[in-house]
Amino acid sequence: MSSLDRANCEALDAKDPLAIARDRFHLPEGIVYLDGNSLGALPRATAEHVQTVIQAQWGHDLITSWNKHGWVDLPRRLGAQIARLIGAQSDEVVVCDSTSLNVFKLISAALALRPDRKVILSDNGNFPTDLYMAQGLAQLLSRDHHLEIVPPEAVIDRIDTDVAVVMLTEVDYRTGRRHDMATINAKAKATGAHTLWDLAHSAGALPVDLNGTGADFAVGCGYKYLNGGPGAPAFLFVARRWQDATQQPLFGWFGHAVPFAFETAYQPKPGIDRFLVGTPPVLSMAALECGLTTFDGIDLALVRQKSLALGDLMIRLVDQECAGFGLTLASPTEGGLRGSQVSYAHSAGYAVMQALIARGVIGDFRAPDLMRFGFTPLYVRYQDIWDAVATLKAVLETAEWRLPAFNRRAAVT
Amino acid sequence: MSSLDRANCEALDAKDPLAIARDRFHLPEGIVYLDGNSLGALPRATAEHVQTVIQAQWGHDLITSWNKHGWVDLPRRLGAQIARLIGAQSDEVVVCDSTSLNVFKLISAALALRPDRKVILSDNGNFPTDLYMAQGLAQLLSRDHHLEIVPPEAVIDRIDTDVAVVMLTEVDYRTGRRHDMATINAKAKATGAHTLWDLAHSAGALPVDLNGTGADFAVGCGYKYLNGGPGAPAFLFVARRWQDATQQPLFGWFGHAVPFAFETAYQPKPGIDRFLVGTPPVLSMAALECGLTTFDGIDLALVRQKSLALGDLMIRLVDQECAGFGLTLASPTEGGLRGSQVSYAHSAGYAVMQALIARGVIGDFRAPDLMRFGFTPLYVRYQDIWDAVATLKAVLETAEWRLPAFNRRAAVT
Repeated sequence: MSSLDRANCEALDAKDPLAIARDRFHLPEGIVYLDGNSLGALPRATAEHVQTVIQAQWGHDLITSWNKHGWVDLPRRLGAQIARLIGAQSDEVVVCDSTSLNVFKLISAALALRPDRKVILSDNGNFPTDLYMAQGLAQLLSRDHHLEIVPPEAVIDRIDTDVAVVMLTEVDYRTGRRHDMATINAKAKATGAHTLWDLAHSAGALPVDLNGTGADFAVGCGYKYLNGGPGAPAFLFVARRWQDATQQPLFGWFGHAVPFAFETAYQPKPGIDRFLVGTPPVLSMAALECGLTTFDGIDLALVRQKSLALGDLMIRLVDQECAGFGLTLASPTEGGLRGSQVSYAHSAGYAVMQALIARGVIGDFRAPDLMRFGFTPLYVRYQDIWDAVATLKAVLETAEWRLPAFNRRAAVT
Repeated sequence: MSSLDRANCEALDAKDPLAIARDRFHLPEGIVYLDGNSLGALPRATAEHVQTVIQAQWGHDLITSWNKHGWVDLPRRLGAQIARLIGAQSDEVVVCDSTSLNVFKLISAALALRPDRKVILSDNGNFPTDLYMAQGLAQLLSRDHHLEIVPPEAVIDRIDTDVAVVMLTEVDYRTGRRHDMATINAKAKATGAHTLWDLAHSAGALPVDLNGTGADFAVGCGYKYLNGGPGAPAFLFVARRWQDATQQPLFGWFGHAVPFAFETAYQPKPGIDRFLVGTPPVLSMAALECGLTTFDGIDLALVRQKSLALGDLMIRLVDQECAGFGLTLASPTEGGLRGSQVSYAHSAGYAVMQALIARGVIGDFRAPDLMRFGFTPLYVRYQDIWDAVATLKAVLETAEWRLPAFNRRAAVT
């Protein structure tokens, strides 16, 4: 393979059909942002729209805005926008609460479908909060329910007739390794288990086909590839066939059949709305709405194609430029097995990442030794990958990551 | 008692020591807003502060803002601001999730303190979502736990040695009737029960003394008297003595002892932080922060004094101006027994309220027949009470509420 240079990368950008999407975002000058898998960048539309909601809606129309400006419909309206990105029907998705809380609701719903089974199956590549929520629920139930954690590659064989629910994150937050959703859904169905997918690192990064692959339940995050802003509300998906057959235990008034009748006994709304709990956080939802509109007119097949091309380019350039510096690729080389990120292990990964950030290349670090580089195809360019790798090479060549400033751990990295 | 006129009300405003606080809010021209107990008005500082968080923090500093701009501390920082308003220590309160979810967490925590007791005691004046959350939890536990609902006045005598937790809203959302927190806490303590107070209609409206009265747990709402914006995050209080002795079942990563170690097993953080679940909704929290700063330098004793004076004035003026129109006072006349609202029953309450709103006097309606008028002492004036009652009189005299336009029910009132 011939060696690549920056001009080659610029040429790729010049013919990128998604290049127009970058204008939908505010990106600071001089920064290469490869951390959209932790916090998506700011869409250009957000600031003004949130101002309108604050001043013209809340400020001027006050309480009447719940109807007048459709605040009450936000969970469903935003859910319908997300549905297209994840292969769901518009009435199968709502936006609400946090990913953690939505995991709790949907494990509960899934367990109730299989009262005879006690195993919640997951893998050690799942994001910890999902595992914690399962542990909390199992402890609360105290009916022999337990979380069983196996390695990712062992999941498929472990799915058996004692498993109530298979709870997995499609794309591993550390390595980017991707589960085969169709195969796992099929095995679960064959054994009578149900599946709960966490799409935190999938939704908006690659096409997901929940209904096409027979998924039962799913959750996902609003603040990563959906660009909803820090701590944006999350979403949940319940396949139509389970909506009226299940309920979740967090009986809140927004999930009540007639919330404004103020009855003392809970009765769930029909359909997906029963998975709502409290009053929707309107300002955060307004920001998420702008994040979702960055996908208007965007073909997710092109998103996936570019995402893989960016990852392949990164792997190739690191091989070309950074050999001998102790970097070990921690992500699958084969695109089909990978999400929208590439991770490298390095014994001084934390300090190297801090040195990169100091030079304006923002990725992040995950214990014990992983440097993550996330690719948001709507705004990351091929030339950004060149610049990131060139900067990585400079940091490693100069060994500037050995400076004390880069070795101090912060609370959040 | 001599009759009052608008000039008398203006004179009261002229000598009101809280008059300065009204400038801290954006209030639309020509509107009398008596619905701050449903959605607080927009503070003047909010729009600009949220812009800064969106543009300078999220937009420019991206992921680094979690530390650089203290996003990670928001739950505790805002909690400490609320603590002063409710008689708590700064390390006893956090802002997180919705009131409903916080009720779920704290009933769970309270039940775990009394595993031998099965009764969650509440009253039929509690806000329904609190009752629903208790029903959902009891159903999930399936260990004979149950919610028992009695009339408000029967609560004190029903507290007995079989009650695990007494869960009450201090101020009734419909009538404004106020529970005697000190007496109920004392009876609960004497019988070995714990108390969980919902301060949705108390926090910011009147001084609350959680520690002085021996309360165990409390929750409250950010979008009513705290002016945090539509669907603002809620708060919760856990008395210091219970923080390490209890935990809640929604094991989320923000409640984990070392969230960024990404361990697979949950272990709760020491102190109040274990009551956190998912990633904090930064934009909504930024707005709430501005709501809380409207209380800077404000003496809550003056807030209470004005709140009661506004309520007394409303009752007096309705007696004076609106006799014979079928209005029945549904709130206690005695200030000490009342929160910061006055409600009237009327057989056409919904339509009368719609007619009032059409004339710019905004209160709200609660089924079956109650018109609610809430008083936020920081921005409601005595002359507003005059104008509200004069408008009410006009609506009743003209019987314009009989028009079809005012009799159509909307989804949210």
